[in-house]
Amino acid sequence: MKETAKLTILGCHSANPTGDKFTTSQVLEMQGHLFLIDCGEGTQMQLRKARIKFSRVQHIFISHLHGDHFNGLIGLISTFRLLGRKSPLHIYAPKGVQELITLQLKLSGSWTNYPLHFHELTLKKSETLWEDEKVVVKTIPLRHRIYTNGFLFQTKVGLRLINKDAVEGLALSPKHYRMLQEGESIELENGKIFTNEELTRPPAPVKSYAYCSDTVYDDAIVPLIEEVDLLYHESTFLEKHAALASETKHSTAAQAAKIAALAKVKRLALGHYSSRYNDKNDFLEEAKPIFENIILSEDLKTILF
Amino acid sequence: MKETAKLTILGCHSANPTGDKFTTSQVLEMQGHLFLIDCGEGTQMQLRKARIKFSRVQHIFISHLHGDHFNGLIGLISTFRLLGRKSPLHIYAPKGVQELITLQLKLSGSWTNYPLHFHELTLKKSETLWEDEKVVVKTIPLRHRIYTNGFLFQTKVGLRLINKDAVEGLALSPKHYRMLQEGESIELENGKIFTNEELTRPPAPVKSYAYCSDTVYDDAIVPLIEEVDLLYHESTFLEKHAALASETKHSTAAQAAKIAALAKVKRLALGHYSSRYNDKNDFLEEAKPIFENIILSEDLKTILF
Repeated sequence: MKETAKLTILGCHSANPTGDKFTTSQVLEMQGHLFLIDCGEGTQMQLRKARIKFSRVQHIFISHLHGDHFNGLIGLISTFRLLGRKSPLHIYAPKGVQELITLQLKLSGSWTNYPLHFHELTLKKSETLWEDEKVVVKTIPLRHRIYTNGFLFQTKVGLRLINKDAVEGLALSPKHYRMLQEGESIELENGKIFTNEELTRPPAPVKSYAYCSDTVYDDAIVPLIEEVDLLYHESTFLEKHAALASETKHSTAAQAAKIAALAKVKRLALGHYSSRYNDKNDFLEEAKPIFENIILSEDLKTILF
Repeated sequence: MKETAKLTILGCHSANPTGDKFTTSQVLEMQGHLFLIDCGEGTQMQLRKARIKFSRVQHIFISHLHGDHFNGLIGLISTFRLLGRKSPLHIYAPKGVQELITLQLKLSGSWTNYPLHFHELTLKKSETLWEDEKVVVKTIPLRHRIYTNGFLFQTKVGLRLINKDAVEGLALSPKHYRMLQEGESIELENGKIFTNEELTRPPAPVKSYAYCSDTVYDDAIVPLIEEVDLLYHESTFLEKHAALASETKHSTAAQAAKIAALAKVKRLALGHYSSRYNDKNDFLEEAKPIFENIILSEDLKTILF
């Protein structure tokens, strides 16, 4: 079981991209899955540059239907077709995405040759979108100008780990091992009893990633993202433009840091920078006094956690 | 009157773009106008890199609704809004474009704050799309998998030019000048008659640019593009994939050169290269024996003519 998760920032700039800056898209690699989160214009080109194997993406999560989070989706869907994709693609996005993508495919006369499943979102409270035995993905309702969700990715608590030193020399059956992994105590054939704690260690820690973009400052999300290993929280503006942030339903770097502090997350990644600022370090300087462990997102940066 | 036209290739690669290759888009600068031709994903970023002033684009011509010629349009329309555009934008594109763009704007809750005019195309014969006193733009019907047009841009025949040496010492009135510019002969007050040819030179040459992409080999277009100064003709494939070109309704480099030769154009620009080829010089080698004056398009290359 791979225990390290990896986030690749494909683009971390807000709308109105300049020549070398990409709008929002990320790939999260967790427990062998590749989850694509948002899909701004040029995402497929950034996936190539990051040398991420397209075919492994099976789930795409779209926060909202503003173009800087979404305009690259149709191109990616078309490219999957050109690459001969056969496996299903699942798209989780606000209602409307199916009508739009279907119209785009119809106008271009290019239907996909792989199954395309739309999961349209309308709920305003957190819901589970997808899960398997290792990972669960839930929505984080956000407050923006249009219907928007963030996403919470969590590995599930796994089996307890056998303490190899402790079991050495004991004649354990496969059934004993299974019981131990599941947290039970065991009794050997000779009548000797071992508590679970004597022979096992706790499961690998749960990893969690919370993606929150775009959103106005909203501490209602705090209970949903408490103590996550990594929080990406948009910081479109600096405090000197706090009124503009409020008006356009975006956040400042200080507000992102405040959410991180309230939720006691381990690390905070800032991003979705407005193109009006030239120096990203201004975001860091503003946020650092409020929350210490900050990463400045950059296009094609990877974060291990 | 600026007499040199300038074509900036923003992207010249076919679908399935790799990290550093852009799909189709061009800007033609002619007689003070900036015409945007096709708008693949990432066009707005290429416009920035080429340092082309966005606001001067008033007319966008879309050949067909395949994504690699079209997916960048919604992003550009949105960016114009963010930049505070006020002047009208005219989009000439196949039927369907208005429904799609309108749906995209509706879903993103972001209507433009400038007039957006759609001119939907359905005709299968050449028609005039736009003209002013200096330039005329016409369609070139092409044969591709879906409804497609190329575009012909021509400067109009201007006024005859006064031969300054010849008129020196003659007492000409403003009316005389105007008559001469318009091709008439004149009679001076002393009764002396001058033919127009004695005192003028022919108007500045007509400039013409023909854009033909995407299309299967089709010599029916030859009469429409005869003797243009510059022809951009797609060359997706090499002859070794001629069957594939025919099947997908694209052209080979040799076929593009044959059209150029038949139409006696002055220069041919090849482009819309398939990503299967590593060396663009193979296109040049294939086409050169058939037509001499060839330019290999490259992203961000400019061509003066």
